[in-house]
Amino acid sequence: MKSTLLLPLALALVLATTALAQQAAPKPTPPRPGGIPADAAWHDVTTWGVEGRGWADQERKKWFDRLPAKAEGKVTAAVWGLSRDSAGMMVRFKTDAKAIYTRYTLTKTNLAMPHMPATGVSGLDLYARDTDGKWKWVQVTRPGSAKVETTLISDLAPGLREYAAYLPLYNGIESLAIGVPAGAQFEGLAPRAEKPIIFYGTSITHGACASRPGMVHTAILGRRFDRPVINVGFSGNGRMDAAVGDLLAEIDAAAYVIDCLPNMGPADVTAKCVPLVKQLRAARPNTPIVLVEDRRFTNDWITPGKKKFHDDNHAALRAAYDQLQKEGITKLSYIPGDHLYGDDTEGATDASHANDLGFMRQADVFEPVLRAAMK
Amino acid sequence: MKSTLLLPLALALVLATTALAQQAAPKPTPPRPGGIPADAAWHDVTTWGVEGRGWADQERKKWFDRLPAKAEGKVTAAVWGLSRDSAGMMVRFKTDAKAIYTRYTLTKTNLAMPHMPATGVSGLDLYARDTDGKWKWVQVTRPGSAKVETTLISDLAPGLREYAAYLPLYNGIESLAIGVPAGAQFEGLAPRAEKPIIFYGTSITHGACASRPGMVHTAILGRRFDRPVINVGFSGNGRMDAAVGDLLAEIDAAAYVIDCLPNMGPADVTAKCVPLVKQLRAARPNTPIVLVEDRRFTNDWITPGKKKFHDDNHAALRAAYDQLQKEGITKLSYIPGDHLYGDDTEGATDASHANDLGFMRQADVFEPVLRAAMK
Repeated sequence: MKSTLLLPLALALVLATTALAQQAAPKPTPPRPGGIPADAAWHDVTTWGVEGRGWADQERKKWFDRLPAKAEGKVTAAVWGLSRDSAGMMVRFKTDAKAIYTRYTLTKTNLAMPHMPATGVSGLDLYARDTDGKWKWVQVTRPGSAKVETTLISDLAPGLREYAAYLPLYNGIESLAIGVPAGAQFEGLAPRAEKPIIFYGTSITHGACASRPGMVHTAILGRRFDRPVINVGFSGNGRMDAAVGDLLAEIDAAAYVIDCLPNMGPADVTAKCVPLVKQLRAARPNTPIVLVEDRRFTNDWITPGKKKFHDDNHAALRAAYDQLQKEGITKLSYIPGDHLYGDDTEGATDASHANDLGFMRQADVFEPVLRAAMK
Repeated sequence: MKSTLLLPLALALVLATTALAQQAAPKPTPPRPGGIPADAAWHDVTTWGVEGRGWADQERKKWFDRLPAKAEGKVTAAVWGLSRDSAGMMVRFKTDAKAIYTRYTLTKTNLAMPHMPATGVSGLDLYARDTDGKWKWVQVTRPGSAKVETTLISDLAPGLREYAAYLPLYNGIESLAIGVPAGAQFEGLAPRAEKPIIFYGTSITHGACASRPGMVHTAILGRRFDRPVINVGFSGNGRMDAAVGDLLAEIDAAAYVIDCLPNMGPADVTAKCVPLVKQLRAARPNTPIVLVEDRRFTNDWITPGKKKFHDDNHAALRAAYDQLQKEGITKLSYIPGDHLYGDDTEGATDASHANDLGFMRQADVFEPVLRAAMK
């Protein structure tokens, strides 16, 4: 595929060179990398803000960190490190441009994982509202280095419309700008004031193994509910920690989704679930709380050991849920884990982490429960 | 994720080293890489054969090439180069082993693409039949170098069963062996004698951007029909070539699926479709032939230029189909392209190439047409 992609590029370069050679002065300003005109107008997204960046008014180590600076040393070192990925953040803007460019610098040079492509780990994933107001997909970057400067999309249909770009799932952002051709209308749209849905979870919530940042279920649900989401997924380290609970309780959320079981065992669930829910409930008496069982491994039909692990985890969460209900905790919902990835064994890339098919199915299971909870 | 994966590994190494240090002679044989016991029994798959490897009785440059040696110089250089990827091949075996290992060498060190992970480009993707005879997913390798030697799966439920492993989609194979623990029953299963379905197409047929080799629609359909498939997808180079047609005509197929439009323009379709169908029909009077329109780009709602391109391609294929029918060619079917990836703009990784969601949807559209055609 590489070679066939390079051929047209090489041809274009030859043609461009020939054209330039035949042309007399004045020479046009050479285009920047990624076919971007030199006079493109650039807009730094930090000047108007990013959705999914909770605790936005608090001091931060880096602007695109998911957690505020004060979290360092309170949450575990692993959680702190993982919180520096931009998972779940999304920037909105309005433009009538015929082309959209982006220039961003990633914090890590490791752009992909063996089971997740660079488009998902380090890509910027663009959507736009159609005339019916619905979010539709536009294009994703294909990062080849930690410095990305590229045309996201060109030859767009005319019209002033709203766009939303999802930030990388398993990489961090040093800086991020959106560019448009000179003269195009452009307006950065501030994060919406609506209460966000907060997802506290594991690598799956973090986004493994979505092919693009817009395909993690938290992003899919954000588009379906058309409201901000905050992704507090920490790969391997979503463990119902009280220190994370302290942070969550600070945010006046539309709902808290607690989806940590894949990183926990039954004893851990029994010890930590009831306290975490009570901690959130004490701070936010009326905020819906949704408890989620761990999905089944898609190969658990042939690996009985894993089946037992999930049986036990499910039972522990169900017992915690029953106890909380018995103690009179209201506005509590429950999502069983058995069918989160579907029933045909095809919903994951590596048994544990969803592929795009599994994320879509997971969003389908979450949606009605969340809709009822937030009524 | 990396760091959290490495931590337990480091700990395990420390513990293992300590354990070894404390242990007196005799030292156990050190395990091979990937947790494989030194006395594992290895089985070279070339000794019993691979499905999806057409023209199997003809001379080959490399055993795992998709095309026979005689094709070199007849097909284009690009097609020849791409035919050396193992896309669509699948090896079956029967074992009662509790663990399955694999050892294979890839032809290319480029293990992934920016929009397709190493699991899909270079992975070995294992399925097994459940007690109900249905294919279910087991596990995929996560290649980290061109030489892979790893435990594919362990802790399997007891039982003698049939397995099928799909070979890499966008890489080639120098050698491939399946390993099982010493003493386990093992039988290589020869390619089934049933007629294969042949898919002649583009990068999408070739497998871009499936997260695993078993997720390309040709593989999904092979499992649903439970019959061999041959993947003749050539990234960027599926163009209804007569030279490829000559090769296809040699194979007594269950059906020919001609799915080249994404690599062609309307003039090309008009010039080449009718001759290719007549070429196949002349050689195989009764073999069903299925013509497939190109899918719509998932962002064509906002890129009118691409919409027009596909409109024109569709019209050209429809005209060729009408002409063929008028000329009395029978056993001809037609798959419209508009809904191959679904209708929500989410079925591709990069507008053009399917993600796992898009491949599943494409299989759902193909299945009833193929089922009717092969009746």
